[in-house]
Amino acid sequence: MKQFPNRIAILGVGLIGGSIALGLKKHFGPKITIFGSCASIKRAQIAKEMGIIDIAIGAKSQLPKDIRLVIVATPIRTILKILKSHAVSIPKNTLLIDVGSTKKTIIEEAQNLLPRKLSFIGTHPMAGSEMSGFENASVNLFRNKPWIICKAKATKHADLSIVEQLISILGAKPVLMNPDNHDELTTWASHIFLVTTSMLVKNVSRQKKWREIAEIASTGFRDSTRLASDNPVMKRDLVFTNKKNIVKALKNFKNEIDIFLQLLDKNKKAGVREYFENAKNIRDGWIANYFS
Amino acid sequence: MKQFPNRIAILGVGLIGGSIALGLKKHFGPKITIFGSCASIKRAQIAKEMGIIDIAIGAKSQLPKDIRLVIVATPIRTILKILKSHAVSIPKNTLLIDVGSTKKTIIEEAQNLLPRKLSFIGTHPMAGSEMSGFENASVNLFRNKPWIICKAKATKHADLSIVEQLISILGAKPVLMNPDNHDELTTWASHIFLVTTSMLVKNVSRQKKWREIAEIASTGFRDSTRLASDNPVMKRDLVFTNKKNIVKALKNFKNEIDIFLQLLDKNKKAGVREYFENAKNIRDGWIANYFS
Repeated sequence: MKQFPNRIAILGVGLIGGSIALGLKKHFGPKITIFGSCASIKRAQIAKEMGIIDIAIGAKSQLPKDIRLVIVATPIRTILKILKSHAVSIPKNTLLIDVGSTKKTIIEEAQNLLPRKLSFIGTHPMAGSEMSGFENASVNLFRNKPWIICKAKATKHADLSIVEQLISILGAKPVLMNPDNHDELTTWASHIFLVTTSMLVKNVSRQKKWREIAEIASTGFRDSTRLASDNPVMKRDLVFTNKKNIVKALKNFKNEIDIFLQLLDKNKKAGVREYFENAKNIRDGWIANYFS
Repeated sequence: MKQFPNRIAILGVGLIGGSIALGLKKHFGPKITIFGSCASIKRAQIAKEMGIIDIAIGAKSQLPKDIRLVIVATPIRTILKILKSHAVSIPKNTLLIDVGSTKKTIIEEAQNLLPRKLSFIGTHPMAGSEMSGFENASVNLFRNKPWIICKAKATKHADLSIVEQLISILGAKPVLMNPDNHDELTTWASHIFLVTTSMLVKNVSRQKKWREIAEIASTGFRDSTRLASDNPVMKRDLVFTNKKNIVKALKNFKNEIDIFLQLLDKNKKAGVREYFENAKNIRDGWIANYFS
């Protein structure tokens, strides 16, 4: 097993990047040195002052030559830009990984754009929060959560073991799959909720009586729309790099609404009860068997 | 101000009825005696053993003659049955209130069915949890949450003051409105989420790869579908007693999906980002200004 590098860089120290940094520092203590960049050098310096990273660097800095692991935790569009323009400024023989919410576009670009001396692995931790920024980072964010790994064509076994060590250190559960499958499965496990929660908020707020509605909305509204408060840039990037699957899922969901409307239209009281019971059983079963 | 009755009955001691009981007992201590029924006398006896109510009664028992307040906290269909068949077994000069999620049907039925010697006020606390049953009752369930009051035609001022005292004791915020307005506003503040969360779960679970999706679903799925675990009977009753508004809202939501699909279809990247930003601002603003 290849030893976990003791000098690494995290590009985009936000909620996810910051939580990775905290987990690594908790595990390795002073034995690891973490370089980190944010959208601005000022933000990176605050992250340093807060002890989340060790050395603040600019978003476009040349990385020190002895960095062997670079974790890109920016929105997807920036990941793609880094792959395009920055690959050359990353030291040779370095492993690059990303933590973006879609994988096919990113891995294709990595395979096309990266020089052969760099290795790339796409990953996606299934964890998050509507509270963005490293100020909300937590050492427990990934605990017991799935963390998907998508190998690129040339991924070496030794590099894969680095990613597996990272995931294990952070307490997450590694799940290996190909990028196509990732983008299809996460559409249904996550992306559709990122989109429909925003739609529900928009839809409700378009009502003439929105102010009165807002007065009486409560915990149900809060929880059912939590993801509407997630990062809009992250969302824009994920819908445009996973457009085909998302369009298909939304059209499919419109059919689901029609199925329910028909039950109502035909006054099927037993059918409606069964519909709700079935949904409850599925969700309760998921909580009991899969969620921890 | 009419004094709050010291002998009351709660028909349907579940999450809501149980939380009301706990709040009243915390406030009044041994000065109040709470009679309570559940779906079975056995359940009511457990509630009594847990100290949630004082005296367990059967769901169809004659109530003692000195009970001046009856709170009906059953699913709506049972509320309607109680109004129909049980009105006569409730002592004269008693105030009846309910806590169901729709109000127009219930108040119309109350006005039609109740003898003149009974007073009725419809109410709806905007609070809940997917964990049903009195075992999950909490003295804080209603704290700072809106609690809607809908008067019936003949509601007396003195009776209204009893309801206002109840809401104040439980720490909730009274909101007075007419039943039509209630049913329209709660469609958008609550009912649409009770329905769409179930639809999302059903829709996702219909996918061939549901087992693989379940493996990687995480906190986003959990929160966005919480209401899918709510009581199916409560949901069935609310959709059939508020059908017109719910059908209208679901059709309206289908249009919202189309608005978004058009942005995607036309590749409007700035438009999609703005859509998500706007939804985030609306929800964040709601949390800051309305939710506590």
